[in-house]
Amino acid sequence: MSDELLRGLEGVLVAESELSHVDGQAGKLVYRGYDIETLAEEATYEEVLYLLWHGDLPTRAELSSFREALAAERAVDDAVLETVTALAEAGEHPMAALRTATSMLSAYDPDVDADPEDRERALAMGRRITAKVPTVLAAFERARRGEEPVEPDLDPELSHAGNFLYMLTGAEPDEVSEETMDMALTLHAEHGLNASTFTAVVIGSTMADIYSCVVGGIGALSGALHGGANQDVMEMLHEIDDADADPVEWATARREAGGRIPGFGHRVYKVKDPRANILEGKLRDLSASTGDDKWLRYTTSIEAYLEDEGLVEKGIAPNVDFYSGSVYDHFGIPMDLYTPIFAMSRVGGWIANVLQYQADNRILRPRYRYVGETDATFVPLDER
Amino acid sequence: MSDELLRGLEGVLVAESELSHVDGQAGKLVYRGYDIETLAEEATYEEVLYLLWHGDLPTRAELSSFREALAAERAVDDAVLETVTALAEAGEHPMAALRTATSMLSAYDPDVDADPEDRERALAMGRRITAKVPTVLAAFERARRGEEPVEPDLDPELSHAGNFLYMLTGAEPDEVSEETMDMALTLHAEHGLNASTFTAVVIGSTMADIYSCVVGGIGALSGALHGGANQDVMEMLHEIDDADADPVEWATARREAGGRIPGFGHRVYKVKDPRANILEGKLRDLSASTGDDKWLRYTTSIEAYLEDEGLVEKGIAPNVDFYSGSVYDHFGIPMDLYTPIFAMSRVGGWIANVLQYQADNRILRPRYRYVGETDATFVPLDER
Repeated sequence: MSDELLRGLEGVLVAESELSHVDGQAGKLVYRGYDIETLAEEATYEEVLYLLWHGDLPTRAELSSFREALAAERAVDDAVLETVTALAEAGEHPMAALRTATSMLSAYDPDVDADPEDRERALAMGRRITAKVPTVLAAFERARRGEEPVEPDLDPELSHAGNFLYMLTGAEPDEVSEETMDMALTLHAEHGLNASTFTAVVIGSTMADIYSCVVGGIGALSGALHGGANQDVMEMLHEIDDADADPVEWATARREAGGRIPGFGHRVYKVKDPRANILEGKLRDLSASTGDDKWLRYTTSIEAYLEDEGLVEKGIAPNVDFYSGSVYDHFGIPMDLYTPIFAMSRVGGWIANVLQYQADNRILRPRYRYVGETDATFVPLDER
Repeated sequence: MSDELLRGLEGVLVAESELSHVDGQAGKLVYRGYDIETLAEEATYEEVLYLLWHGDLPTRAELSSFREALAAERAVDDAVLETVTALAEAGEHPMAALRTATSMLSAYDPDVDADPEDRERALAMGRRITAKVPTVLAAFERARRGEEPVEPDLDPELSHAGNFLYMLTGAEPDEVSEETMDMALTLHAEHGLNASTFTAVVIGSTMADIYSCVVGGIGALSGALHGGANQDVMEMLHEIDDADADPVEWATARREAGGRIPGFGHRVYKVKDPRANILEGKLRDLSASTGDDKWLRYTTSIEAYLEDEGLVEKGIAPNVDFYSGSVYDHFGIPMDLYTPIFAMSRVGGWIANVLQYQADNRILRPRYRYVGETDATFVPLDER
């Protein structure tokens, strides 16, 4: 037992994982060995979920029944929709609303009493959570716009991504939109032991049910130091736009004032995040198809400027958050839904991590160094 | 950066704390230096909360305004009560219902938008959560009995503990009951870096709000490996009673069949948990005042038997869970509320730990050893 304080647990190896790996020097991310670029281009989010949860890419038959099983679970109980509406009326933040609504879903899950070591039933719960999170998120967004929820597509005609956009807007999405959303979900599904995944694993290590783990993950992702950077990027782009400023001049001024540019730099990546490359490509497609390339111009010129300034070389390169907001903005998605959409994708990763950890479980319980008093003398209230 | 796998993070020093310390060899627990025995006897739960949150025991004036501030926050929005009723109707588990209801409270907290580093506003949120958790818990219990909620006492005439019993039963509790519940809350308020406190701290390390931290803590405490042992003890006592068995014969048979006796042994304590001693004393008082000493006879004879067997000497001694259930049973509290009542007390500790950690924050993010594939070859769906 070492007496060294391992602050932030930085660098501490806590478990083994087969789920994903980042090579920060090479800018390479794999899920179970598959390049993120290939998965983003060639596989759907459903295939990625299957891969993360079951260990292999599904056959056609496996994917077909997986898609059906997932889609069949998309509806939520009316009581959940009523709570979601109450939260919207109270002006609740989308991440907090998602935390509450996801927690509430457990009341309607027939497997929640399962033996915590029953992996099949944990997976069934995982499917239900993953299927229902887009439903409650879309219902919340519509409720705060004063609109009734759109019932989910229960036949798996619409993909997970497509059904989400459908529930959000009430209209079936075009192919480019569905593909882009699907890709965004794939890109955010899993990323090792970040703070929200670690949270889910810590909760899972008590053999708590998967709802408790996911709810904890949502809470952690809501933290200012964790999720939310893509919203910061979008706020910057709007600020530039509202001021009718030149993006490079704006970024220069921000840096001269001691500020930093959101969406740059990453704890692990020392080069451009591969997910940023993929999203940049998608942003190009969307800009071309819509004829609106404003955010593309802003983002790429800021990136080029920071590259010229030598930051990218120093490892302050664009991360996944730098381009995702601009993509979501093309769908008319409000900024404060960006982090919830991140959560909607990462739910799949949290579940995979919890199942993996629980299969060889050890309760996660480090210790404190006590630096307080040991022999305080109690003074009765009357004499204080 | 060490390449050693620190399983369960056992023994790993992750931060400094001034909040509580356990001397497992001596069976001594202190909160900020004060013996748990003294605090249990001489201080109320409100004083303990103040001590944990503010660093010192309150003066009379400080305690008076603290009690008022806490009591003034006991009511919850009607929408929360509606959700709690829906959860009760759906047959939700009390811990899961508490997780959802506590999460929902944030929608009605005016400070939830506060700068995450604003300690005063975090404390205000902490007061609200602590004040309202008993309200939602009592409302849930009444709803599943088909009863309307009892409005909380908003003048601080009733203590935190007394008001909880009042909301549960609709009648003002007698002095012994109020004192005993108050003591139980004090005993469970804080206990270092257990898994639920660690969860709250991990979430807090992202600078998430205090609701997210507490909700995560509730999730972790619901795990089979964490909270819930007092319920196991009570189930054992009922099993003995239902079988009309002799407790010692029953315990002997259980052990001979390879089973263990719940409520014995603790990771840290190598002697009898001081909290068990205190609760045993309270159980004696309650048994004397009610004339019903059944649970006292059962528990003390099992303890004496295990002591004779040499287990206590080996460190398998009674822990806090061994006597708390019998105490709660004297109030007619159902077994599945024991862990939620533990949570209701520990909320104070979780908040203290999060505030302490965030004051010198570092995001908690260990790492995995990746043992999966690195170069898998993607096979298109059509060819799988």
